[in-house]
Amino acid sequence: MEPRPASRSVTTMTELILPTHANSLGSVFGGQIMAWIDLCAAICAQRHTGHIVTTAGIDDLSFDRPIKVGQVAQLRARITAAFRTSVEVRVEVDGEDATTGERWPCVSALATFVAVDAELRPAAVPPLLLASDEDRTLAEAAAARRAARLNRRHR
Amino acid sequence: MEPRPASRSVTTMTELILPTHANSLGSVFGGQIMAWIDLCAAICAQRHTGHIVTTAGIDDLSFDRPIKVGQVAQLRARITAAFRTSVEVRVEVDGEDATTGERWPCVSALATFVAVDAELRPAAVPPLLLASDEDRTLAEAAAARRAARLNRRHR
Amino acid sequence: MEPRPASRSVTTMTELILPTHANSLGSVFGGQIMAWIDLCAAICAQRHTGHIVTTAGIDDLSFDRPIKVGQVAQLRARITAAFRTSVEVRVEVDGEDATTGERWPCVSALATFVAVDAELRPAAVPPLLLASDEDRTLAEAAAARRAARLNRRHR
Amino acid sequence: MEPRPASRSVTTMTELILPTHANSLGSVFGGQIMAWIDLCAAICAQRHTGHIVTTAGIDDLSFDRPIKVGQVAQLRARITAAFRTSVEVRVEVDGEDATTGERWPCVSALATFVAVDAELRPAAVPPLLLASDEDRTLAEAAAARRAARLNRRHR
Amino acid sequence: MEPRPASRSVTTMTELILPTHANSLGSVFGGQIMAWIDLCAAICAQRHTGHIVTTAGIDDLSFDRPIKVGQVAQLRARITAAFRTSVEVRVEVDGEDATTGERWPCVSALATFVAVDAELRPAAVPPLLLASDEDRTLAEAAAARRAARLNRRHR
Amino acid sequence: MEPRPASRSVTTMTELILPTHANSLGSVFGGQIMAWIDLCAAICAQRHTGHIVTTAGIDDLSFDRPIKVGQVAQLRARITAAFRTSVEVRVEVDGEDATTGERWPCVSALATFVAVDAELRPAAVPPLLLASDEDRTLAEAAAARRAARLNRRHR
Repeated sequence: MEPRPASRSVTTMTELILPTHANSLGSVFGGQIMAWIDLCAAICAQRHTGHIVTTAGIDDLSFDRPIKVGQVAQLRARITAAFRTSVEVRVEVDGEDATTGERWPCVSALATFVAVDAELRPAAVPPLLLASDEDRTLAEAAAARRAARLNRRHR
Repeated sequence: MEPRPASRSVTTMTELILPTHANSLGSVFGGQIMAWIDLCAAICAQRHTGHIVTTAGIDDLSFDRPIKVGQVAQLRARITAAFRTSVEVRVEVDGEDATTGERWPCVSALATFVAVDAELRPAAVPPLLLASDEDRTLAEAAAARRAARLNRRHR
Repeated sequence: MEPRPASRSVTTMTELILPTHANSLGSVFGGQIMAWIDLCAAICAQRHTGHIVTTAGIDDLSFDRPIKVGQVAQLRARITAAFRTSVEVRVEVDGEDATTGERWPCVSALATFVAVDAELRPAAVPPLLLASDEDRTLAEAAAARRAARLNRRHR
Repeated sequence: MEPRPASRSVTTMTELILPTHANSLGSVFGGQIMAWIDLCAAICAQRHTGHIVTTAGIDDLSFDRPIKVGQVAQLRARITAAFRTSVEVRVEVDGEDATTGERWPCVSALATFVAVDAELRPAAVPPLLLASDEDRTLAEAAAARRAARLNRRHR
Repeated sequence: MEPRPASRSVTTMTELILPTHANSLGSVFGGQIMAWIDLCAAICAQRHTGHIVTTAGIDDLSFDRPIKVGQVAQLRARITAAFRTSVEVRVEVDGEDATTGERWPCVSALATFVAVDAELRPAAVPPLLLASDEDRTLAEAAAARRAARLNRRHR
Repeated sequence: MEPRPASRSVTTMTELILPTHANSLGSVFGGQIMAWIDLCAAICAQRHTGHIVTTAGIDDLSFDRPIKVGQVAQLRARITAAFRTSVEVRVEVDGEDATTGERWPCVSALATFVAVDAELRPAAVPPLLLASDEDRTLAEAAAARRAARLNRRHR
């Protein structure tokens, strides 16, 4: 398969925080943000792999400053590495006050997806074209995380 | 107030169609698409006006080809005209099959929002910088629609 | 097919506004109202046509006074015109404070639906029986709007 | 307080069954129907009492034939009895296939609500005008149920 | 079929009350609690019967003290009686303030479910093993309620 | 503060998978599971700390076998370590077919929460009583993960 650049599958999502997304403190509740991260990363993984994907794992998800009702969540997902039948996707979520233009980091996370065919068996995925130093650094870190993850599983 | 270019407030939204968004035919149901159009256009209007906005109206909303569960809705909103305390926003929604890259027009609509201050009174909005012929054509058509709308109301 | 009177398919819906329907101002958010309009009009169109219907478009949707959390949205849909395979439906939404009985116009809109058969192909719909002057006035205005709409599309 | 007729507060609700309301059998799930019954009865109780109300209890809720995705739930609530600070409301839910006009009983239930003032203390409610034999029969049965309920509680 | 003890199918559910579950008073709205009761009791009925179940009725549902946004609903369901093709389930819902450990009765209800096979026909269910005096008292009361219910239906 | 045993705050949640929770493959979608994990862990963290908590991060979330519509998700959360103003919670999610009693591991994850006071400032949390070897092993692993996390952040 032809390698594909990460830029080809970059996925952005924008969500207005409504009371239906809030916790009792008036901020978007953590689980809602995680649901959006999973969706944004899944679309990105589908665009890269050309396959339906299923979530295999989430790592390094950490929250900074919250997003309040009436503000905006801005998500951006990009592939960091493609393995044989899986990809790792990094998602960054910013908060935004659309009336002032202020913007701040809210959450980031790494999500891993397995590509599956019509019978839900793992399917081979196109390699990631490593076009820049940043691409290579991200892919190496992803490979190290994957090795650590498999290692943890075996124990 | 300084005129602001339309490019400054362009807003994109991406949604994966889940069974929770579907009608009994397995496509996203019309009302869900309208809800997303309203949210996407509202964020765009807030970014341009710097104010909280409330929906004043929707026109010319027309559906082409549906979007199925498992496919993606891709929304794009831009300001077409700024009036004294309101703006018109055009939203275009494409369907996308993220696994094949196929993409098709699904819906387009025009939404009007009133900018409000903290006491919910109408607030003045920045003019729209008309930088290109397209900008001018869109703004003229919007002004004509607004005149027709006010005319209909008076009758 | 036998013409059917508009009275036969009049559809009313009643919704209590909960926090899950609200925007950050404590009123029902515009997109939620639009979703209800689409559902109410779709039931009305199914009752008239005897077919499953898909939303083709929305026009002239305009918001007056908002409805707050704890108040009630009262929707009423009626057919204004039946064409070969489509119908136009007018929906009026009132706000109501159920504890005082106060009631006010909130939104009105015109929705167009295409009737489809089991293979999702357009299906012929029964004519609308024009029994009163009001029926005839509404049907003429609907026909004019449809002509304008088709005209806009062709350009 | 002036007695009020039951006809004054009759409340009807119409809901199109979407996949989001369904159980794994493709019918509306029981809990969703109960949520709609509670909302419809609460609006009816508010209209009669002129107060915010809180659910005190549900009795005699029984399901007949289910309603499938794509069909319609039609609810109708009426006051059966007014006590000092509470009312009993009967709700009947019909299923409807809007394309054929077929209609069938789906659920009925009795709901009791307490009227509360702004400090959430029980508030006196207007008597129910018993205008017909049916009104009197319903009110007597409601009083008997209430006595049995209070009796069960005391034990 | 082998009798099964009630302890085998006891089902507990825990829900954090979010604004999306609330009424306009900031407490969980009655219909949401009923939906959770139906789900908790249905799982309990499936565990006992080994069949898919459909809700047949709800009785004696009564609300005590409400649960506020930010607090917790704790549900517990147990079989009280097994009939030929149906079971009665008692559900008790407590409110809990997870930060103080305070806990209070909120709602209790009796739900009846019919077990169905793959063609949705009623299916025989295992008897309930009556191991203690409490088991026997509950089962007798359930049988009396069932007789009263059938009696009401016949009239 | 008095140390508290992990057993005091163990939290279990049970959810019936409905179509509203599903992805296009008919299984619960990953983001929905994550939302439930966040809620279950947050209740557990509130029970231990006696404070409102906000999600700080998620690690080592990995999916095994999916859960289908009609099956049950069974969550169990327990504190693994208490730090100065934060706790780590481990959540394990099993799938269950309630009609057969079959049960399988679906997901596990580690979630970190910060305890906050009424002004949303970090609040001191009670130590965790390490009563068994398992308690000590879990707490040591949690401390190592925390050190690695802080280390990653600083880079």
